Amino acid sequence: MANKIPVGILGATGMVGQQYIRLLEDHPWFQVAVVAASPRSAGKKYGHTLKNGWLYDGLIPDRVGKLTVRDVGDVAGVVEECALVFSAFSIPDKDESRAIENSYAAAGLPVFSTGSSHRGTENVPMLIAEINPHHLEIIPAQQKKNGWGKGFVVVKPNCSLQSYLTPLHALMEAGYTIDAVAVTTMQAISGAGYPGVASWDIIDNVLPLIPGEEEKTEREPLKILGAISKGSAGWRIVPKKGLTISAHCNRVPVSDGHLACVNISFKGKKPSAKEIINIWKKFRGEPQRLKLPFAPKQPIIYRYEANRPQPKLDRDSDKAMSVSVGRLREDTIFDFKFVALSHNTVRGAAGGGILNAELAYKKGFLK
Amino acid sequence: MANKIPVGILGATGMVGQQYIRLLEDHPWFQVAVVAASPRSAGKKYGHTLKNGWLYDGLIPDRVGKLTVRDVGDVAGVVEECALVFSAFSIPDKDESRAIENSYAAAGLPVFSTGSSHRGTENVPMLIAEINPHHLEIIPAQQKKNGWGKGFVVVKPNCSLQSYLTPLHALMEAGYTIDAVAVTTMQAISGAGYPGVASWDIIDNVLPLIPGEEEKTEREPLKILGAISKGSAGWRIVPKKGLTISAHCNRVPVSDGHLACVNISFKGKKPSAKEIINIWKKFRGEPQRLKLPFAPKQPIIYRYEANRPQPKLDRDSDKAMSVSVGRLREDTIFDFKFVALSHNTVRGAAGGGILNAELAYKKGFLK
Amino acid sequence: MANKIPVGILGATGMVGQQYIRLLEDHPWFQVAVVAASPRSAGKKYGHTLKNGWLYDGLIPDRVGKLTVRDVGDVAGVVEECALVFSAFSIPDKDESRAIENSYAAAGLPVFSTGSSHRGTENVPMLIAEINPHHLEIIPAQQKKNGWGKGFVVVKPNCSLQSYLTPLHALMEAGYTIDAVAVTTMQAISGAGYPGVASWDIIDNVLPLIPGEEEKTEREPLKILGAISKGSAGWRIVPKKGLTISAHCNRVPVSDGHLACVNISFKGKKPSAKEIINIWKKFRGEPQRLKLPFAPKQPIIYRYEANRPQPKLDRDSDKAMSVSVGRLREDTIFDFKFVALSHNTVRGAAGGGILNAELAYKKGFLK
Amino acid sequence: MANKIPVGILGATGMVGQQYIRLLEDHPWFQVAVVAASPRSAGKKYGHTLKNGWLYDGLIPDRVGKLTVRDVGDVAGVVEECALVFSAFSIPDKDESRAIENSYAAAGLPVFSTGSSHRGTENVPMLIAEINPHHLEIIPAQQKKNGWGKGFVVVKPNCSLQSYLTPLHALMEAGYTIDAVAVTTMQAISGAGYPGVASWDIIDNVLPLIPGEEEKTEREPLKILGAISKGSAGWRIVPKKGLTISAHCNRVPVSDGHLACVNISFKGKKPSAKEIINIWKKFRGEPQRLKLPFAPKQPIIYRYEANRPQPKLDRDSDKAMSVSVGRLREDTIFDFKFVALSHNTVRGAAGGGILNAELAYKKGFLK
Repeated sequence: MANKIPVGILGATGMVGQQYIRLLEDHPWFQVAVVAASPRSAGKKYGHTLKNGWLYDGLIPDRVGKLTVRDVGDVAGVVEECALVFSAFSIPDKDESRAIENSYAAAGLPVFSTGSSHRGTENVPMLIAEINPHHLEIIPAQQKKNGWGKGFVVVKPNCSLQSYLTPLHALMEAGYTIDAVAVTTMQAISGAGYPGVASWDIIDNVLPLIPGEEEKTEREPLKILGAISKGSAGWRIVPKKGLTISAHCNRVPVSDGHLACVNISFKGKKPSAKEIINIWKKFRGEPQRLKLPFAPKQPIIYRYEANRPQPKLDRDSDKAMSVSVGRLREDTIFDFKFVALSHNTVRGAAGGGILNAELAYKKGFLK
Repeated sequence: MANKIPVGILGATGMVGQQYIRLLEDHPWFQVAVVAASPRSAGKKYGHTLKNGWLYDGLIPDRVGKLTVRDVGDVAGVVEECALVFSAFSIPDKDESRAIENSYAAAGLPVFSTGSSHRGTENVPMLIAEINPHHLEIIPAQQKKNGWGKGFVVVKPNCSLQSYLTPLHALMEAGYTIDAVAVTTMQAISGAGYPGVASWDIIDNVLPLIPGEEEKTEREPLKILGAISKGSAGWRIVPKKGLTISAHCNRVPVSDGHLACVNISFKGKKPSAKEIINIWKKFRGEPQRLKLPFAPKQPIIYRYEANRPQPKLDRDSDKAMSVSVGRLREDTIFDFKFVALSHNTVRGAAGGGILNAELAYKKGFLK
Repeated sequence: MANKIPVGILGATGMVGQQYIRLLEDHPWFQVAVVAASPRSAGKKYGHTLKNGWLYDGLIPDRVGKLTVRDVGDVAGVVEECALVFSAFSIPDKDESRAIENSYAAAGLPVFSTGSSHRGTENVPMLIAEINPHHLEIIPAQQKKNGWGKGFVVVKPNCSLQSYLTPLHALMEAGYTIDAVAVTTMQAISGAGYPGVASWDIIDNVLPLIPGEEEKTEREPLKILGAISKGSAGWRIVPKKGLTISAHCNRVPVSDGHLACVNISFKGKKPSAKEIINIWKKFRGEPQRLKLPFAPKQPIIYRYEANRPQPKLDRDSDKAMSVSVGRLREDTIFDFKFVALSHNTVRGAAGGGILNAELAYKKGFLK
Repeated sequence: MANKIPVGILGATGMVGQQYIRLLEDHPWFQVAVVAASPRSAGKKYGHTLKNGWLYDGLIPDRVGKLTVRDVGDVAGVVEECALVFSAFSIPDKDESRAIENSYAAAGLPVFSTGSSHRGTENVPMLIAEINPHHLEIIPAQQKKNGWGKGFVVVKPNCSLQSYLTPLHALMEAGYTIDAVAVTTMQAISGAGYPGVASWDIIDNVLPLIPGEEEKTEREPLKILGAISKGSAGWRIVPKKGLTISAHCNRVPVSDGHLACVNISFKGKKPSAKEIINIWKKFRGEPQRLKLPFAPKQPIIYRYEANRPQPKLDRDSDKAMSVSVGRLREDTIFDFKFVALSHNTVRGAAGGGILNAELAYKKGFLK
């Protein structure tokens, strides 16, 4: 323990916060030193606060259960005890959210956020560690512009796009240009947090609307695939051009695992189905090269069975950090269609956040 | 009763067969006079055979429960007691299925089938009563070619396309040309019949494959929208050209109601969203003009609420015979996108079959 | 309309409130004239407030959708426009709840409540119309003690006990003494209201605890089966003695319909299984004798099929107002065991409330 | 590998058979050497036969996938390649089942069965390794009576009773006499095997009947708790007397994990709630003393949270081999009531079978 990096969880009582605590239990580099939540929980033992409210199997990790919950607003207190924070709190007001995350960065802490308030900020990297690890390089400019010292903010994108964006990226990296992507998602209830979706709304039902989700899933990939560029207002990440995404987002009665039906078209040369599968299977990113603890060995698993991937069977692949893809076939309108799946609260939230922090640490951004 | 038309149900113990019995219970024109099933059930009282196997709420209709089940193969026996049959049996071998339905037609009975074996037969109309009622006009040619007297075969299409095809047809009828349709369906378990989908496969899960379904949903609409034409081999229905459909079909943990996320593009002039909604709301077909008993008053219901249609809330609209549509909005790749829903075992199976029979009766094809 | 009795719904935006509105749509005697809710909704059109939040199939009844929502606290305003209120609001504080219901009674309105705050009040009848209609006779004493004029309060019991208490009462009425009842309930999510149970908690799960429910289901039957008696503090309903109930209450992933596994023992003479079924089938109560609009024709339906009753198939029996019972068999510890089912938000809430009001009206308690 | 004991799985393509293969993948003592199934699958590669039919997450273990499936009837072939068999095939006819298992025992192989056909055989031990390990001692008598050499048959009981019988046994072992147990189970769909329960029957529903289950759960515990005794027909296991069990068994829409609501009464001295919990927590059986690989460290886990155990959260406790218990409280009719849970296809089937084989091996019954 003495040698591990102490980390804090902001929003530790929520569903993503609990997932962080679960996943970090035996982490080789990081250790949960601070749990922070709303003033309502502050001052109580974490284990006592959550006694009937622990959302996962097993018991609350013993050591964390004994920590006293801090108020998220008590920045000075948190900063004193940890070297970075995972921000997983949920405050509807985006300005307030940004202000809180900024206050931690200003106080010198790297902030790895699963929230959405900073995703549109031009100098905040929105990372999928296998796709755009180089976006971390904007951090010095971000620090300079904000007058921050060692602190900074890194975010991860919406969970809805994590199933299909890495497969698309792998094809782009292999030299193919994709110009149109139509996607229909079937998203798990845990994507809405806790208590999230009312059971009355989803048992024996599908909800054809997730407010704001289609906009995010059409827009966020462009920033992730974008380039760092210097504009009149300083360094920023410029969204990729020439790629159009169309999305339908649905909520289905599945606990974990976002499934996407995807159609794609190429501009210029087109790979064969065999080449595509080959590219996916061989794809490795920076996390794999750096052997980061949370990196899945194979980021994209292609399933040859005709009826896979399925949320229940494939969401937990490689510690729930791999994306599973299947059913690649030619399409009548687009060039190809396929089905993709990722675990939304691990790969798409807490696990992705931990991988981002591992990447930043290994790349020397944590000082 | 004396004045009602006696009808037979082939495959009366299956899920669709039971749905026919349920729906026909108080039908003003038709009355179930014969229930036929596999030799295993033949000779027993229908109510006794099904005692612990009635799949719907309430009790087995009393009068039908007392009927003795006949063997589907006993054509002569069935023909004696009824004036038309609804074919809902499920035999994997398509040749055998066709042979059975043909044997009833040859024996002089109109056959209204929910099966798929005759959907590809060029002189068999595949009806959605609001869309292609004129396809009934091929019946004399069908009878002549087969050497049948009063008997004939009419089929209904796959349940997966019933949610979105009537909305597309309404726009076409209003003078707009649609050339591309991408659809992702989320289909209810009852679409697979009974016992159908194993609960282990679908609880907390989505199945991204329904074998054969995508092919049907890409191909069958073209026949429904096609024209009757005389070729070298006689009269046939020629599939529509110039329309391409792309489909993903999924099974979701919903009991009834197939939901579809649809993207469409127009060729030539494009309606506005307001015009589209207006066309849908005003659309009426032949069943409405003829005031057929099973015709929904409004075939296409547009829901303005942002989160509708939903299977649980909208599948039963207007006796489960209306299609519900919502979320019409402009698309980034296609012109528009929307969500559509229909009840798969009523509108998409037994209810649709009854409506087809009502149409044929009113149009004078039952003699 | 002019001749119908105008009624108000307190808590009209909640799940039970919406159920009242749905069920009263075509009521022959009552018509919804006032919808009242928390100050947050007050002043808006009911239909507009609920646009994306109507919890049932179909559309919000047109006439009610146009009503302006009143503040529940605006007693004077509500009283002016209706002759009785159905109280379905949900305020955790029981004192506050009682105070609100009392304020309506004090203002001259009969209050039919689905809430729990007044269930323990000794002079408030807790009615199941088929069991204890005579408890209405305590109303004058209640009015006198509170100094109320025409107003009074009547409550209905917890939904968990409605499936098995009428069957028990029928046996008692037939002259048998039951002294021990062990029950394990499997209760639908709608019993917790809306949003109620989080989907994360119940998909692929059972919750073995419903806070407070076991206590209610062990205690409330004794009051319902009790007698009106005059004590030192005035008239009160004295709980039945000599009957012990033991309960386990569970929440299961079912939308509507509370199922109960019941074991019972008799004291003294014991009926045979055949006699029990006969008693259940023949049982009729005051609502049946008075032919009240919401009275099920047969309050207790016995299902002979080995696998019934089932929530999905039997909850809607006779407008969802009948109790369905099945699987009566001898027990190894108790005398008999059986399974019982009732629809929790109709029979067990709004439908039961309406039936109570119909009873009170027909019996002359509404003046 | 060379040193591992080669084992065969009879019924390897079924749900329990697949579970055996999954659980044995990295077993320290045993290795799957033979997969046997019905003649339909025989002769094909296991992985190819199951390609779209593997029921669990991840991939079919590579080595097993390459094995050629043998016909269960090919006893000689199976015997040649393994030292014991786990019998998990499912043949409705009990005589035929027994004959197959006997043929393996006669050929010299120990048979560890999850089937029910031999549970009533008086000299066949029905083992829960923590409860009645000494019943293995009847094996020599079984072998002698049947004229078998090294072969024998051991069975495990029905999965429905595994959640509550170990807790009852722990109390008995501590010196308390239990004379009455009333139990209502809520059982997972996987308990019915695959395809098992039709999704139509269980989505949004509870089935109040599992044919034959109540009889098993009332009878089998008495044999498990019984004593070996010599009668006129030789050594046999005599069912315990003085204990009466009453059961309701229900199927609920849960994938894995059987939950039981249990009421118990003591004869003679009664422990306090605190003592009971203490006894449960301290309870250890022979598998724990022998440190068997599949033995859970703590066979009975008491959960103090008010809302536990829950199937989704607790079924996987300690490799899904622990029983989780909670909500112990005093009862109004019995002395105490509580809730218990065990994983039905691991602890209650394949995992329990493996533990039994480990016990037999360690105790020297495998020769």
